[in-house]
Amino acid sequence: MTEWTLSWQTVAPGIWRLKAGRPSTLSPASVMNRTPKTAALQSMGETEFPFDAADVKIERVGGRIVVALPLGSEESLYGLGLQLLKLNHRGRTRYLRVNSDPKQDTGETHAPVPFYVSSRGYGVYADTSRIVTLCCGSSVRADSGLSGNAKDRNRDSSWKATPVSDRVEITVADEGVDVYVFAGPTPLDAVRRYNLYFGGGALPPRWGLGFWHRVPKSYSADEVRAEAAAFRERGIPCDVIGLEPGWHTRSYPVTYEWNRELFPDPEQFVRDLEKDGFKINLWEHPYVSPDAAIYEALRPLSGSHTVWHGLAPDYTLPEAQAIYMEQHEREHVKIGVSGYKLDECDGSELTRNSWMFPAHASFPSGCDGEQLRQLYGLLLQKMTDDLYRSHNRRTYGLVRASAGAASSLPYVLYSDLYDHRDYVRALCNSGFSGLLWTPEVRKARSSEDWVRRMQTVCFSPLAMLNAWADGTKPWSFPEVEPIVTRYIRLRMQLLPYLYSTFANYWAEGVPPVRAMALEAGVSVRVQAGSGRFDSDEFAYGGAADKEWDDQFMFGDSLLVAPLFEGETGRTVYLPQGGWYDFDTGEHFEGGRTINVQPGLEKIPVFVKDGAVIPMMAAMDHAPRTGEKIDLELHHYGTSPGMFRLFDDDGETIAYERGEYRWRTVEVTVDTEGRKSGSVSDTEASWSSAFGDFVWVFH
Amino acid sequence: MTEWTLSWQTVAPGIWRLKAGRPSTLSPASVMNRTPKTAALQSMGETEFPFDAADVKIERVGGRIVVALPLGSEESLYGLGLQLLKLNHRGRTRYLRVNSDPKQDTGETHAPVPFYVSSRGYGVYADTSRIVTLCCGSSVRADSGLSGNAKDRNRDSSWKATPVSDRVEITVADEGVDVYVFAGPTPLDAVRRYNLYFGGGALPPRWGLGFWHRVPKSYSADEVRAEAAAFRERGIPCDVIGLEPGWHTRSYPVTYEWNRELFPDPEQFVRDLEKDGFKINLWEHPYVSPDAAIYEALRPLSGSHTVWHGLAPDYTLPEAQAIYMEQHEREHVKIGVSGYKLDECDGSELTRNSWMFPAHASFPSGCDGEQLRQLYGLLLQKMTDDLYRSHNRRTYGLVRASAGAASSLPYVLYSDLYDHRDYVRALCNSGFSGLLWTPEVRKARSSEDWVRRMQTVCFSPLAMLNAWADGTKPWSFPEVEPIVTRYIRLRMQLLPYLYSTFANYWAEGVPPVRAMALEAGVSVRVQAGSGRFDSDEFAYGGAADKEWDDQFMFGDSLLVAPLFEGETGRTVYLPQGGWYDFDTGEHFEGGRTINVQPGLEKIPVFVKDGAVIPMMAAMDHAPRTGEKIDLELHHYGTSPGMFRLFDDDGETIAYERGEYRWRTVEVTVDTEGRKSGSVSDTEASWSSAFGDFVWVFH
Repeated sequence: MTEWTLSWQTVAPGIWRLKAGRPSTLSPASVMNRTPKTAALQSMGETEFPFDAADVKIERVGGRIVVALPLGSEESLYGLGLQLLKLNHRGRTRYLRVNSDPKQDTGETHAPVPFYVSSRGYGVYADTSRIVTLCCGSSVRADSGLSGNAKDRNRDSSWKATPVSDRVEITVADEGVDVYVFAGPTPLDAVRRYNLYFGGGALPPRWGLGFWHRVPKSYSADEVRAEAAAFRERGIPCDVIGLEPGWHTRSYPVTYEWNRELFPDPEQFVRDLEKDGFKINLWEHPYVSPDAAIYEALRPLSGSHTVWHGLAPDYTLPEAQAIYMEQHEREHVKIGVSGYKLDECDGSELTRNSWMFPAHASFPSGCDGEQLRQLYGLLLQKMTDDLYRSHNRRTYGLVRASAGAASSLPYVLYSDLYDHRDYVRALCNSGFSGLLWTPEVRKARSSEDWVRRMQTVCFSPLAMLNAWADGTKPWSFPEVEPIVTRYIRLRMQLLPYLYSTFANYWAEGVPPVRAMALEAGVSVRVQAGSGRFDSDEFAYGGAADKEWDDQFMFGDSLLVAPLFEGETGRTVYLPQGGWYDFDTGEHFEGGRTINVQPGLEKIPVFVKDGAVIPMMAAMDHAPRTGEKIDLELHHYGTSPGMFRLFDDDGETIAYERGEYRWRTVEVTVDTEGRKSGSVSDTEASWSSAFGDFVWVFH
Repeated sequence: MTEWTLSWQTVAPGIWRLKAGRPSTLSPASVMNRTPKTAALQSMGETEFPFDAADVKIERVGGRIVVALPLGSEESLYGLGLQLLKLNHRGRTRYLRVNSDPKQDTGETHAPVPFYVSSRGYGVYADTSRIVTLCCGSSVRADSGLSGNAKDRNRDSSWKATPVSDRVEITVADEGVDVYVFAGPTPLDAVRRYNLYFGGGALPPRWGLGFWHRVPKSYSADEVRAEAAAFRERGIPCDVIGLEPGWHTRSYPVTYEWNRELFPDPEQFVRDLEKDGFKINLWEHPYVSPDAAIYEALRPLSGSHTVWHGLAPDYTLPEAQAIYMEQHEREHVKIGVSGYKLDECDGSELTRNSWMFPAHASFPSGCDGEQLRQLYGLLLQKMTDDLYRSHNRRTYGLVRASAGAASSLPYVLYSDLYDHRDYVRALCNSGFSGLLWTPEVRKARSSEDWVRRMQTVCFSPLAMLNAWADGTKPWSFPEVEPIVTRYIRLRMQLLPYLYSTFANYWAEGVPPVRAMALEAGVSVRVQAGSGRFDSDEFAYGGAADKEWDDQFMFGDSLLVAPLFEGETGRTVYLPQGGWYDFDTGEHFEGGRTINVQPGLEKIPVFVKDGAVIPMMAAMDHAPRTGEKIDLELHHYGTSPGMFRLFDDDGETIAYERGEYRWRTVEVTVDTEGRKSGSVSDTEASWSSAFGDFVWVFH
């Protein structure tokens, strides 16, 4: 039996919490205040504490609380929020400060989440409003007994710049921190428990999973209408049009009020576009202009420092929330605006320009700038989501900062950085931390770059062209317009698959897009190697461990392996089992890597043997509530298969009150290889979203 | 009269100290514990407090102490330690954490010095062992009255990512901090007061100002002897040879003990090289190998965490210092080793590899890892310098980390980074902070790059080729060997000028190498402009203010304007007054910029009208104590001139007991333009370092 030296409390099956020191009451978990999805957690079952609890130590050093946890020599450590630059953090110290310009691989990010997932199949989360530093096996204690492992760098080629450690050390400059442990047995189970404990995953409205387009920042209503019409004329699906700063009377700082010169009748504008199947999404940021009507009311509820001379309201205060929400409800939500792009809530004072309120800013609630910076994105998501929920509507939007405990929020992260490989790496790692990410397309160096980026974004949580600065359109590179159009249409065809995949995120905590390290049958071999050692750049060499950070699962059955500008081929790792090329049907046996040369017209996508992929027609926009969807049910390979099809209205939050059904789509294969498919019925009174089903066997 | 709301104490003429909160007793000033150079400070005179002391506010916010100081809208702010990436910090938040890999412009650096110098002519220093964050006009308080300056970014092109602020805010996560204010009236005066208060500038031995060469890391004694002989054969001056890790029995971590396989008789080796005019410098770092004889003694005096499995001794403890110093004295100093290269005392846990002890490490003295990291470089410099002083010898060496209050330490900073422009920028800015810096040469992409780097390094505090990794020699690019040799010989010819320049650093606090912003007659025009704004990289634009960060003063009379690989010409800013091309004698009128196209064989150097430059023959190595130096005294231009020639033994610390003379070298010009020069005598009993003087009038 384990000796319990510290008081771990079982908070749900397979989830334990330790109050280290005296944790502050302000934290991501307290901001979110979600009810755990207890039934789903219970169905995952009880399990053992995943490591020896006696190995956990807590101490205070110089104003910091330090939580030390055991670490095996072969463990890889994933997660820690939206990390653009690294997948496996083993051997690195990570400094989880929110940073709007995370160019360097320090752990700083738009969305710091102090939750790591071990390849051994457990997770650890530190719930705090403060910056967390994690030594992920990068620190070695003198009392560890490892000092005998010292090596002579001059004569021993096995010397490493970061020696192997037996500890993770989590530090927070605060009085305390809540530490949670999530059991496995697999890494995916640990992630699911984390998501379910914090309320499950987000379920977007169906229209949120269509194609999005953001127009240039100073577009007028008429220009927007014309751009919308152009999509319809060209037969390019589009569900959401995003307006950028110019819709405000003033921006940087903002008013949240409609610029009547550009939008003389916002209500009519939104209604007209709705009629044509377009939702309107509004850009904003948190800094309130002196010209805003709500400025005076918010002034006493705001911080000691301004941003661009605008207020930084203290949205931990219910009074401040009420002012913001009332204004947004009246001027946006009630006239039909579908949601927001919450920009610049990720300010770091250390970016290339310093514009954010400083860490030492003080706020009326008593919190400081460090805390409010770490939580600002979460607070804004929560307020706007609550607002839509109060109208029995779902929203889906964009946000540039997030935090822990955020899986239930219908927001997708984005960045001003723009490296395509980093964007794909973020698709891989966001799923470890209850986050969604879009590799949005803004512009391209070439038609090749354009196609490669467009292909990637169509296999992501939010497929968007963001033309705020550049005015690009899907057809801006005419020579490749057919390829781009094809993928936007494919996105729409896959909507039923993707929507049910998200429903599974909501109900079971399974991330819709995820890294290979979360898949069964994957042996992520960490090939330890020495990096380049070079006296003109970096004298220590780097870690060159190979991780599959350039391919990912899109739902349970599709494996996507993007190509990048300049590449004509790539290596793809296929997990154990049979796989089929999604375009050609070609069969590949998994458990190995293959080389592909797909040509520009194609992004390599592989389907699992036995998979059922429900698809629909490439409509101009997602079906609305009450509109029946006919499905093609595609089955691949020789194994029997099953898909759980989520059936609800697709727009309201009635599903949270039980108004949904899971339809079981099943394929059996008889001894002679003949396939037959079935779809489970619902009760006669149920108003299903689905019409006809047509089977396609591959 | 100023209302003194806080208790500023006058600690020297023109220097005031404020104890904000309860400052810790551990700080750079307490580690250094130098006696201010009171006579020199008194001769600078009393002066007024440089701004309204009533505008200084102190508050505590969330575990931090915040000191707010006034800032005029036109002030530029310089200094803050060794900053490779920016000269003027106005509008930026600077995070002064010691960082071994300071690739990003956040303020992190090998040598954080929380001392800023305003273009208005005053300086402010925060003395603390902790990381300091400075908002250098990057934060705007809501109560500042500036909120009326809000602008609409969409419609107003004068919008700036960082609005103009009226405050500097200094924050430290500690109980308190000592704040010092240094009066001007000029920026140089503020710098001089800072240097003089902390003991004056360092005076290297004469040999330290010759040429240095570091050999590859595994060289044997015989290989070193051969390399030394090659310098002599080619007539390339060389004073110091540096040994890299291989001289230890074990390295990474180190033993400080001679590897007898490579160096069978270290004492004989050092003696032989000394006979040939070479000093030996030894590479080391602070992390003690389990194989070191001093390991067991240091173990109880070391930190909770190891580095490469070596001890990190707590050198704030006198007992730990004694063990280190006794060993170094016995095995290195007593056999004639001249000094050290103190590597890796700048570890940051967030570099591309994490190897340093973490910030939360604990040490026997009670300090934590953050504090010891911030002070480690300072402690090691102080211990080794004290050791040489106790032997009545000067040392001169290299160090990769430093801190505040360090001007008196005979150590020169270097970096593993290698951008030539950044290296020159560091030459400009190190002088603001009591630091010396070498743009060491390691290798080159081309013979052009090689020449340009070699030309720069010969006009720096330490002229060195560091071939530890690459094995390069001054003659590695044979096609340009004559140019490289010429500049190394010119370095030696300028030694009398440079040595007296350093003596002036010691006596008067005037930095030997310095930015244009420290010169009289310079109007540094800050051309505020908008930077590039680009949606694929950075959406806010950048500050594009032009600063003269690519040219510098080398002593009082020489202006050096390096060229960089790929350039055939450049713009040079000449301050008010007459200037002469150092090579051709061509005259230029200052107070303007000029364009030069110097060719690869030349680095542009300009001499002030009236300057006297004492030069000597290009000897193989610097003259030794007692060896008489014949000087050529070069006078330039038409104005009368004066030079204060420092006359001492050049190697011991007798000068600190008054055993030195200033010789006044003077040129008068009569009404017909005829020049005549004179050198002041010393008393007959004085054993001068100088022999004959020959005048050369240009």
